[in-house]
Amino acid sequence: MSDVVSTQVQLAERPTGWPTEDTFRTVEVTYGDLAPGQVRVVNEFVSVDPYMRGRMNDVKSYVPPFALGETMTGGAVGRVVESASDDVPVGAAVLHQHGWRDVAQEDARGFQVVPEIPGAPLSLYLGIFGLTGLTAYVGLTAVADLHEGDTVFVSGAAGAVGTATGQIARLLGAGRVVGSAGSAEKVALLTDRYGYDAAFNYKDAPVRRQLREVTPDGVDVFFDNVGGDHLEAALDRMNTGGRIALCGAISQYNDTERTPGPDNLANAVTRGLMLKGFTLPSYMDHAERFRELMTGWFAAGEIAYDETVVDGIENTPQAFLDMMRGGNVGKMVVRTGA
Amino acid sequence: MSDVVSTQVQLAERPTGWPTEDTFRTVEVTYGDLAPGQVRVVNEFVSVDPYMRGRMNDVKSYVPPFALGETMTGGAVGRVVESASDDVPVGAAVLHQHGWRDVAQEDARGFQVVPEIPGAPLSLYLGIFGLTGLTAYVGLTAVADLHEGDTVFVSGAAGAVGTATGQIARLLGAGRVVGSAGSAEKVALLTDRYGYDAAFNYKDAPVRRQLREVTPDGVDVFFDNVGGDHLEAALDRMNTGGRIALCGAISQYNDTERTPGPDNLANAVTRGLMLKGFTLPSYMDHAERFRELMTGWFAAGEIAYDETVVDGIENTPQAFLDMMRGGNVGKMVVRTGA
Repeated sequence: MSDVVSTQVQLAERPTGWPTEDTFRTVEVTYGDLAPGQVRVVNEFVSVDPYMRGRMNDVKSYVPPFALGETMTGGAVGRVVESASDDVPVGAAVLHQHGWRDVAQEDARGFQVVPEIPGAPLSLYLGIFGLTGLTAYVGLTAVADLHEGDTVFVSGAAGAVGTATGQIARLLGAGRVVGSAGSAEKVALLTDRYGYDAAFNYKDAPVRRQLREVTPDGVDVFFDNVGGDHLEAALDRMNTGGRIALCGAISQYNDTERTPGPDNLANAVTRGLMLKGFTLPSYMDHAERFRELMTGWFAAGEIAYDETVVDGIENTPQAFLDMMRGGNVGKMVVRTGA
Repeated sequence: MSDVVSTQVQLAERPTGWPTEDTFRTVEVTYGDLAPGQVRVVNEFVSVDPYMRGRMNDVKSYVPPFALGETMTGGAVGRVVESASDDVPVGAAVLHQHGWRDVAQEDARGFQVVPEIPGAPLSLYLGIFGLTGLTAYVGLTAVADLHEGDTVFVSGAAGAVGTATGQIARLLGAGRVVGSAGSAEKVALLTDRYGYDAAFNYKDAPVRRQLREVTPDGVDVFFDNVGGDHLEAALDRMNTGGRIALCGAISQYNDTERTPGPDNLANAVTRGLMLKGFTLPSYMDHAERFRELMTGWFAAGEIAYDETVVDGIENTPQAFLDMMRGGNVGKMVVRTGA
């Protein structure tokens, strides 16, 4: 055993609007010998996710806010380098929530041993094999009750959840899958690589008009990662009995003023629409079934994925901001380099 | 048999914003001898309902728009005075959709024979025994999945649907029922007569503040007849897993501009809320069960009701406008005087 220095990113102050360089600070923490039951994990990848912006506010939500002056928590994957626990041996790959640090040393019960994924990096446990993929699956099935043949619209379709959602919708029998993204390159990826039947760049023209053009038969399921004009456009295109999974509203997370909602919510009455918000903690009972399905799909070569990888734990805040601004294709992760 | 003159109110032009005296015209139609299969019905009461405003627009919706230059359709109850049908005999009380006229003469298949309600007028078939009561029942059960002990908030609680909703919620086991209305008199009726635990006048102070005061433990089910600031206030008070039945948005039916939606729809994500719009045509399979329950409750003296009765078929347009402005307590009906 030996001491180790862990580089960690902490929440220094709560941001108003967009986080700045003052929001975070990087510190070094020295870990000594393991206490009984602890393990030491060298992280390979840590995750940056849109939901983290909400946790930076001091507001009661489905998860408590990040603690000020403490290391940012969140998904991370690594390998055990020392262990004082029989359950989590040295060499094991582990998934955990200790977040933005290159080395984690904590009680073994906070680490989940995960199998290697043949031919793929551990970072997929932060993406399509992890909460990202599960979010797509749960939103389509348990929340939006996807039926075979449905037309599905996904906003923010080139993001981590969106790239998973289009593929899973297709594999579950959707009739037509369309998506929006914020650049021509992303739009091309959606149709060329991620199985979308059509896609558009929401910066090119009003979403209302573009969505109408790609959904001649309307929309049955809308998986919303964006909110704002996307939700409004979808409400106009929803078919009777349509279902909307409200997964997020990244367009508004850094707003400092309250943003008016869609001006056509009355369509929900006349068309019998359901809108349902969700977050994963209520749906973890779907995780096992999802992992089975995804393992099968992945082994069969049915799943494409991209990652946007940023190197260096100290660059995690910048990676987070880039992701919030749409600078990623697929899952944004930070390779710790530890 | 003899000819009869029927006074009828027709849609003369489609209104922009609030209907005016030019929107409707009153005409006299002479009916001659019955054709085979027809019946002649003298209406006792005709119904004016908020949903009718939507049908005055030339917009595709769950029911087709009213035809221009034709008699306004809608709920009505009356008695058969002549019959050329074995199924619908002279003297029978009938419920039908031939709307704003004092005498209807049509094919018997358009009339439903209904039993007398002991000690109550036929107009209840336009109110708590009819689609109004069914709307309340379906919204609470099939749409909002009411659970025993839930706190229920009803907007527009002194209206036809609202007075039924509070009582039905209580009878189905709600833990606490609160409502909003637009005058001190209505607020008093809600708590004194309709079983509401608390109520407030939405004109007295912001709904957000008043709702908070009467729901110390938050809201589990919101039955929304109003929209606008009521929906916004409710979204702030909803408990995790809460359900919102979107029944109508009477505050906006006469708007000529699109109205921004609630500024806090993001709460639906973090709290896992469901919002579901509904209209009755999709839920008619609940009608039989509802009629059984309501018959039992009514016979047991568990149901209070008020009607606001306007006399004279020619006053139906004014009754409709008064109802849209909140000039009614309970169900607004027109007594034809025929």
